[in-house]
Amino acid sequence: MRPGISGLDAPCGLMLYSAMPFKITFYPNRKTIEAKDGQTILKAGGAQGVHINATCGGKGNCGKCRVIVKEGKVTAKESAFLTEADIKQGVRLACMTKPASDLTVEIPLGSQMRKGAKIATGSKLDELHKMVCKTCEGELRPVTRKLFMKLPQPNLDDNISDVERLRRELAKRGYEMADIHINLPIIRKVGSVMRARDFMVTATILMFGNVIEVIDVQPGDTTKPRYGAAVDVGTTSLVVYLVDLLTGKVVDMASTYNPQVRCGEDVISRIVYASEMGGLDELQRLVIDAVNGLIEEMARRKEIDPEAIDNIVISGNTTMTHLFYGIDPAHIREEPYIPTATFLPLMRTKALGLKINDFGVIYAVPGVASYVGGDISSGILASRIYKKPELSLFIDIGTNGEIVLGNSDWMVTAACSAGPAFEGGGVKFGMRAMDGAIEKVAIEPGTFEAKYSVIGNTPPIGICGSGMIDLIAEMFLSGVIDQKGRVNLGIESPRVRKGETGPEYVLAFADETGTGKDITFTEPDIDNIIRTKGAIYAGFSTLLKEVGFGFADVKKVYIAGGFGNYLDVERAITIGLLPDMPLDKFEFLGNTSIMGAYMALLSRNLRKDVEDIARKMTYMELSVSRAFMDQYVSALFLPHTNTDAFPTVERMRKVAEEAG
Amino acid sequence: MRPGISGLDAPCGLMLYSAMPFKITFYPNRKTIEAKDGQTILKAGGAQGVHINATCGGKGNCGKCRVIVKEGKVTAKESAFLTEADIKQGVRLACMTKPASDLTVEIPLGSQMRKGAKIATGSKLDELHKMVCKTCEGELRPVTRKLFMKLPQPNLDDNISDVERLRRELAKRGYEMADIHINLPIIRKVGSVMRARDFMVTATILMFGNVIEVIDVQPGDTTKPRYGAAVDVGTTSLVVYLVDLLTGKVVDMASTYNPQVRCGEDVISRIVYASEMGGLDELQRLVIDAVNGLIEEMARRKEIDPEAIDNIVISGNTTMTHLFYGIDPAHIREEPYIPTATFLPLMRTKALGLKINDFGVIYAVPGVASYVGGDISSGILASRIYKKPELSLFIDIGTNGEIVLGNSDWMVTAACSAGPAFEGGGVKFGMRAMDGAIEKVAIEPGTFEAKYSVIGNTPPIGICGSGMIDLIAEMFLSGVIDQKGRVNLGIESPRVRKGETGPEYVLAFADETGTGKDITFTEPDIDNIIRTKGAIYAGFSTLLKEVGFGFADVKKVYIAGGFGNYLDVERAITIGLLPDMPLDKFEFLGNTSIMGAYMALLSRNLRKDVEDIARKMTYMELSVSRAFMDQYVSALFLPHTNTDAFPTVERMRKVAEEAG
Repeated sequence: MRPGISGLDAPCGLMLYSAMPFKITFYPNRKTIEAKDGQTILKAGGAQGVHINATCGGKGNCGKCRVIVKEGKVTAKESAFLTEADIKQGVRLACMTKPASDLTVEIPLGSQMRKGAKIATGSKLDELHKMVCKTCEGELRPVTRKLFMKLPQPNLDDNISDVERLRRELAKRGYEMADIHINLPIIRKVGSVMRARDFMVTATILMFGNVIEVIDVQPGDTTKPRYGAAVDVGTTSLVVYLVDLLTGKVVDMASTYNPQVRCGEDVISRIVYASEMGGLDELQRLVIDAVNGLIEEMARRKEIDPEAIDNIVISGNTTMTHLFYGIDPAHIREEPYIPTATFLPLMRTKALGLKINDFGVIYAVPGVASYVGGDISSGILASRIYKKPELSLFIDIGTNGEIVLGNSDWMVTAACSAGPAFEGGGVKFGMRAMDGAIEKVAIEPGTFEAKYSVIGNTPPIGICGSGMIDLIAEMFLSGVIDQKGRVNLGIESPRVRKGETGPEYVLAFADETGTGKDITFTEPDIDNIIRTKGAIYAGFSTLLKEVGFGFADVKKVYIAGGFGNYLDVERAITIGLLPDMPLDKFEFLGNTSIMGAYMALLSRNLRKDVEDIARKMTYMELSVSRAFMDQYVSALFLPHTNTDAFPTVERMRKVAEEAG
Repeated sequence: MRPGISGLDAPCGLMLYSAMPFKITFYPNRKTIEAKDGQTILKAGGAQGVHINATCGGKGNCGKCRVIVKEGKVTAKESAFLTEADIKQGVRLACMTKPASDLTVEIPLGSQMRKGAKIATGSKLDELHKMVCKTCEGELRPVTRKLFMKLPQPNLDDNISDVERLRRELAKRGYEMADIHINLPIIRKVGSVMRARDFMVTATILMFGNVIEVIDVQPGDTTKPRYGAAVDVGTTSLVVYLVDLLTGKVVDMASTYNPQVRCGEDVISRIVYASEMGGLDELQRLVIDAVNGLIEEMARRKEIDPEAIDNIVISGNTTMTHLFYGIDPAHIREEPYIPTATFLPLMRTKALGLKINDFGVIYAVPGVASYVGGDISSGILASRIYKKPELSLFIDIGTNGEIVLGNSDWMVTAACSAGPAFEGGGVKFGMRAMDGAIEKVAIEPGTFEAKYSVIGNTPPIGICGSGMIDLIAEMFLSGVIDQKGRVNLGIESPRVRKGETGPEYVLAFADETGTGKDITFTEPDIDNIIRTKGAIYAGFSTLLKEVGFGFADVKKVYIAGGFGNYLDVERAITIGLLPDMPLDKFEFLGNTSIMGAYMALLSRNLRKDVEDIARKMTYMELSVSRAFMDQYVSALFLPHTNTDAFPTVERMRKVAEEAG
């Protein structure tokens, strides 16, 4: 069946403005949706749950939202990402194409937005759980507590009000009477709740500061079961742990892309969308709906009543947190980069539209500044460096590249605007660490053949951050690229060639990939990675210098980031992303944002700790620092202009050269 | 124009169930409303702002809602309150009559519900205001405070979040940083508010316990003007003071009937209406709407922006307070008489639908028990007995007859179910102290002629509490009635006669009244008053005995209640309502409920005082007390079975007898 599509930029006149919405049926998921007047395939699909990969947020800049129009007429804008052959086959960019009739559209594998960045595995969670329990001296202390109480029945001699009866019982259990607050929604129901089961009730109490608030009362004993959710609100991905609050164990986990991605890939474009395009409410709704969806999915899977979930802790960068709470993030992107809030009040989940128990509460892990958010406080909590006397370095390699340096006495922090390259942004075949992503790469010296492993053991569709680090290190050591990242076209191998965007290396040929197309790594991709790793290296070099230390003083380096379960530290040193230090000084922690949220969910003590952490960290603004710029320029080489700083890499290179 | 009304109990068949609502035009207020299917004239009018007097709440028991149907057809139930002559003239009870066509209806003077119980006058308020200011050591301290602040503008070296900037500034002014809370609605606006006037903002802060909450931020200096409202939520009347919070002065006052009256006259029938007839929301809406109306009326009159009003304090009995907050009062009327709450949390006025500043707060004066509410705590605050070492007695003579005995060390309290006789309930021509009410009465010895004075100097339409006390005392001393309240029909006077309900005394003949009908006082009316005064006297006798004191130990008696500005203490002693003590021991305070609300509005210190008062009072349940029943039976005489307890009255009676 050949699609009867109209040509590029050839609008179908009246039909475009027809009052009848066009139907679009998507394959392979067989979902039919209706497109509103003027909506692109990307937008119409996204609005109704059919998410197509588009890391630029639908601006036509990334070329990743390729779809194949199988039937029907469309109007489409020109795009340099499409070849003539593409167009003949019906390939279009979903963000640049609007239906002009009912359509049948295929979403090829490479454009499918799959669920799930990889998340921490069982054994790591068990360790974390043990650590949290140890910190709480064996007792789980979530922000809320459920108490079953048999209240004495009232009589003429004991005739205090229902509310005072409840407060008196709580005072008997050691809470300070004067600090016990009960708000109107609870007061309105307490009378009938008490009388429903002969004055046996379960009270849910919330402790913040010295105040104890009764946030729910239920008839009978409802202390079991109890669940909470820890949420990592990433710019790209959302990860949720469903946690049994009685045992502290993670009972399920789920993740998905942050659907805000279609309004902009990075925080800056989301801020613009929220502040200048009136999209604040939409962005908030998108993320809340997605979190609701993940919780609902897990609750159904584990046959848990969502009413039994009464606690949520979120952890995210400052912009994500603003958007989650519906706070205008406008000033975050304007010098002097002021967030509205880094600490948010404990509040009802219901007020944000989260669908758990009506009286549930939400807590956000506090942040430090516009570009060092709650996710970094979470990272420090998880790494425990705030408890250790020795000097440690914490690096979160995400879009922003946040760094913390310090010990139990002091901490300084900075963000280095690294960019999203390691998360797949700005890299032709870049993708997150999920099924189909190449995560490990080796290049055979001499033959220049590539060996790789793919997450999920499927044919590859792209490459994730850890794969990119491996690949660039291997290309560098094997001589495919030089210190500046230039591809050596003199190499005689079908893998080294001049492609459409210049010199490139073919990591996987079409016949072995999941998309039926070559997976390549181009010079612009390499440049992007070098700029990213340069910014991160410059960041911690600058920070160390500012406080009068050198790498030799650093006893431990903790690495966090969306690398799934794998990061080859040696390779990261090879490309100059990490400093050239003994390997045993490095520890890879994975997604510390969700770990911190999980810890704060289980323990009030750790929640207090993370608040102290956020208050304690001194933020340095690197974007205006002359020293940072100097360091950055020096780091735009492999591994660095100062090769003395990377003796191990020099040795490896020499060995490789001699072998080659 | 003769009304073409159909006969009693003769429904007009189909017309009654017509889909078209009937129109009713009321005179003299010339308002036309629409009656829904099946609505009585009383209900239809009440729902649309035409209030007709009906102290029984529309059950056909009081006969006070007489209206004259001038044009149109109605269906009406029979009523013993209507004579044949009435019916011929088109007189009907509004609560028993439904329209069967469009109607023109006249509301006669006696059925008009007039605005306004009398409220405290200027001089008393000035005194109160001086006293409050003295208590606060010259400083007004409302529950909220407005602070104008010029915040330092952020820069790269001073780049804390907007919220922290605000908290830091408050901390500079002496507030404890850790105690300062800011909730999401404020966080959402603080960024733009700060930048609207170069970081000059006005913060409204609320203090409760140790917590300081920023409840509003506004750009620029909005510290002036500021207003608050003190509200007395009475079972029968609502009184509101509009208060300038910068000077502490009352700038206006307004009052109206509590429109809940049409759902039941007393607290018990309101509880039934709320709990068993699903009327809780309706009752809440009625009172909130009425308070909004009074505030709006005063704001318009004084040309004040309602946005400048950001504080409300209410004071009312426990049932009224429950209904105001939408709390089911069901258990108040079931033994062991447990209220849901006596202390209510400070909260946003917006959450209750009060139309002042969106960020305004409401505080309810706390109560003690189901039948000793915030109005009594207010009374103790206003009387200051909790500050005095000497033994004092406080009596609020309203529907319930609440009593407090004590001093600065201890207080006991009780309610004696006195009934609403002194407020006009259950008395044929009884009414509240307002225009048209006879408030003073004297009977000429020998001739038995009555002299009276009327509030507002208009022709009388009824008699209020202070008038009833005078009248019964005068009838007793002049021999019109005996010790048991029986009318002496042997007296030869046109004023002493056998009426439709038995022996009665004519206080005013038809030609001098505002209704064109005789105003009489019947034996059932007298019985009612005797039972009421007996319950109150029995109440404080029992209370005194329980704590081992006698009347001689009482140094001061404070009297509160809806008597307007007048209560003749000597006459109250004569009928045995008050104990026979030297007159200088008595002090009449008027409406202490509104006074207490006003005091709590002006001063946090006094708010703390009234909370201490409510906690300190020990409640005694008289309804099950054998001693109370004995005292009550002994008090069902004029002045009392034990005449030794009333030597002054005995002397007066002897003098009167000798004169007669």
